[in-house]
Amino acid sequence: MSDLALGRRLMDRLEALARFSDDPDGLTRLYLSPAHKRAADAIAGWMREAGLDVRLDAAGTLIGRYEGARADAPTLLIGSHIDTVRQAGKFDGTLGVLSALTAVEALSQAGERLPFAIEVIAFGDEEGVRFPSTLRGSRALAGTLNAAALEERDADGISVREALVAFGADPGRLADAAMSRATSLAFVEVHIEQGPVLERMSQPVGVVTAINGARRLSVVVQGTAGHAGTSPMNMRRDSLAAAAEMVLSVERIAAETRDVVATVGVIDARPGAVNVIPGETRFTIDTRAPDDAARDSVVERITTAIDGIAARRGLAVRISQTHSAPATACDPRLVADLDAAARAAGHAPVHLPSGAGHDAMAMAALCPVAMLFVRCTGGISHHPAEAISLKDADAAMRVLLHFLRTYKP
Amino acid sequence: MSDLALGRRLMDRLEALARFSDDPDGLTRLYLSPAHKRAADAIAGWMREAGLDVRLDAAGTLIGRYEGARADAPTLLIGSHIDTVRQAGKFDGTLGVLSALTAVEALSQAGERLPFAIEVIAFGDEEGVRFPSTLRGSRALAGTLNAAALEERDADGISVREALVAFGADPGRLADAAMSRATSLAFVEVHIEQGPVLERMSQPVGVVTAINGARRLSVVVQGTAGHAGTSPMNMRRDSLAAAAEMVLSVERIAAETRDVVATVGVIDARPGAVNVIPGETRFTIDTRAPDDAARDSVVERITTAIDGIAARRGLAVRISQTHSAPATACDPRLVADLDAAARAAGHAPVHLPSGAGHDAMAMAALCPVAMLFVRCTGGISHHPAEAISLKDADAAMRVLLHFLRTYKP
Repeated sequence: MSDLALGRRLMDRLEALARFSDDPDGLTRLYLSPAHKRAADAIAGWMREAGLDVRLDAAGTLIGRYEGARADAPTLLIGSHIDTVRQAGKFDGTLGVLSALTAVEALSQAGERLPFAIEVIAFGDEEGVRFPSTLRGSRALAGTLNAAALEERDADGISVREALVAFGADPGRLADAAMSRATSLAFVEVHIEQGPVLERMSQPVGVVTAINGARRLSVVVQGTAGHAGTSPMNMRRDSLAAAAEMVLSVERIAAETRDVVATVGVIDARPGAVNVIPGETRFTIDTRAPDDAARDSVVERITTAIDGIAARRGLAVRISQTHSAPATACDPRLVADLDAAARAAGHAPVHLPSGAGHDAMAMAALCPVAMLFVRCTGGISHHPAEAISLKDADAAMRVLLHFLRTYKP
Repeated sequence: MSDLALGRRLMDRLEALARFSDDPDGLTRLYLSPAHKRAADAIAGWMREAGLDVRLDAAGTLIGRYEGARADAPTLLIGSHIDTVRQAGKFDGTLGVLSALTAVEALSQAGERLPFAIEVIAFGDEEGVRFPSTLRGSRALAGTLNAAALEERDADGISVREALVAFGADPGRLADAAMSRATSLAFVEVHIEQGPVLERMSQPVGVVTAINGARRLSVVVQGTAGHAGTSPMNMRRDSLAAAAEMVLSVERIAAETRDVVATVGVIDARPGAVNVIPGETRFTIDTRAPDDAARDSVVERITTAIDGIAARRGLAVRISQTHSAPATACDPRLVADLDAAARAAGHAPVHLPSGAGHDAMAMAALCPVAMLFVRCTGGISHHPAEAISLKDADAAMRVLLHFLRTYKP
């Protein structure tokens, strides 16, 4: 194959798939929507052309199987998701599915059979836009999806179960979707980074060490509202000034701990008038880390700092946890294999945590998981400006193919 | 008179006037409303009973004249306003009108004639709730009210001019409302403090040194939005964290300068999602000071600090001024007279600036002005919980009467 040919094939398919949208202006492809169906049909066609056996499982996941050298060989799972957010980019999720398909197609065209079968997987429910919960596809494969999750309804009152039937899937066979732990070797997911690290480090690919766990806190600071003109500075109990100090302590404490991030994304000062000292200020804190103990230690330090600021200023504060999810470690052997594959392709891959959630989190209940990140322009994702370069697409293909050719079950 | 009798008479009238409301649930008395008319009629009745000559001017201001010892004596003006905010307290404004009326009534009953006439004034347009601009009553007396200000309309489309006619005033005689600079000695306004200083200093009354000038700024901090999970702390341009630092610098710089206050009352971080680093944060700054140079110096230091924070963090910032009004100094001789009157009544009056605006600001264009503040519970105003004690009402009456009896034209 000529230079960049694999990358070009991948990019052409990414462009082609981006045309399947529920919204004529921009790319929106929600779980089990008509656009999801047309995208899945297109991929199924490409899978068959590449010589894969195609099936659709009970959760609407499309799976293309490429047999190994022996009929009883165990199976390596590779892929990602093809649903999107509203007004999405063309790469989030889709890159992982189409790079997997293009890699296996290359093996198939070369007549290469490996000591394991490969299943190319296109999940449909990763973004969590249409229904309240998410990751139904990967949880179904991992055998952790409760049938109750099929009764959730979208904004139009349509249940997941009804949408699955309309999609052409059979939700009654949910139990059959669960894969065997005995024969599932690993799940490897290629994904755009959705962050700025690879671009900053001038590397096309990175190896994910863990998918961050998260804890979210809600903070309510209670001071005393007052007239902005008539309350001297030393007689105020200004909830917003206290919250400002707390926001800075969140930033400082997270920055002191490697790989931990913490963000205040929402703030609301009440009553919210230019001439009134805010009596009550509410804000959120989102903390994430690849290591649960490190994250918990940071949360502990943040809450101690907040309590101290409130006490010193004579204000009341309530901190409540609104969300908690543990980190998912990537398999060390797979991490080493992906690192070696990247180095064989001439790169010095960055090892980094994933700050966003992925299907690999759910797949970790089934088998070892790993992720390969691909550099994206400006770290932008979930936006029409989401982009990767042709050269990086080609780099990702070469790393993935090298990994497949050298992986030992 | 027995102990507290003057205070009791004042408190009884304050209670009686609070019954005139446009809203059966709570006290709301907007400029030129039916409740304003009924309140003005009640006060006119009390004025006549006290032997005052009553007139209503073109701007709906009620004036009761108590002649001096000589027919050609100049006039001292005392009073405040009788309009209220929505869901108001019983004391803001009304205290100044009814304390003036009750003081002159005491003089009249005792047959005391002074070397000057006194006009008790009940303005009707201080809170600025019904029409866009405000202080029409005091600006009309000061001769600074443009006739165009009568064409403003309320939310129902009724103009000030139409409302004045319905109220029984004659807006065509606006020019006649302007008082003579030659015969207007001074304007003295008694008012609740609307702040916590007197309570904190355990003093029933305070003498106002100046009515604060104000400048308001609007600040827009432009950073870069990003995924809360995928952007390492050292690669962020978090507009809210920068704004938090700016909020604290506003607080610190104002606290460093005596009598200056600065408040951030409104903050808005966008897009405002728990898992997104805020790309843009907007906030307001309200600064006030009794001295324009001190206020301008604080504004200068605040803008320098904000620019420095933005530069250090690599963010863009835009600061624009949305409002500016100069301070109104109280007349030093009147300040000394009120101080002496308070000391004669056994108090050690606090000298303090007024953070809120008052009719005295507009009256300063006509004659020297001064204000006597009365302690209010918890510094609360513009709220049904607004309160003063009987003892403090009595103290205010005694200070005002002593001032009137000793004031030298």
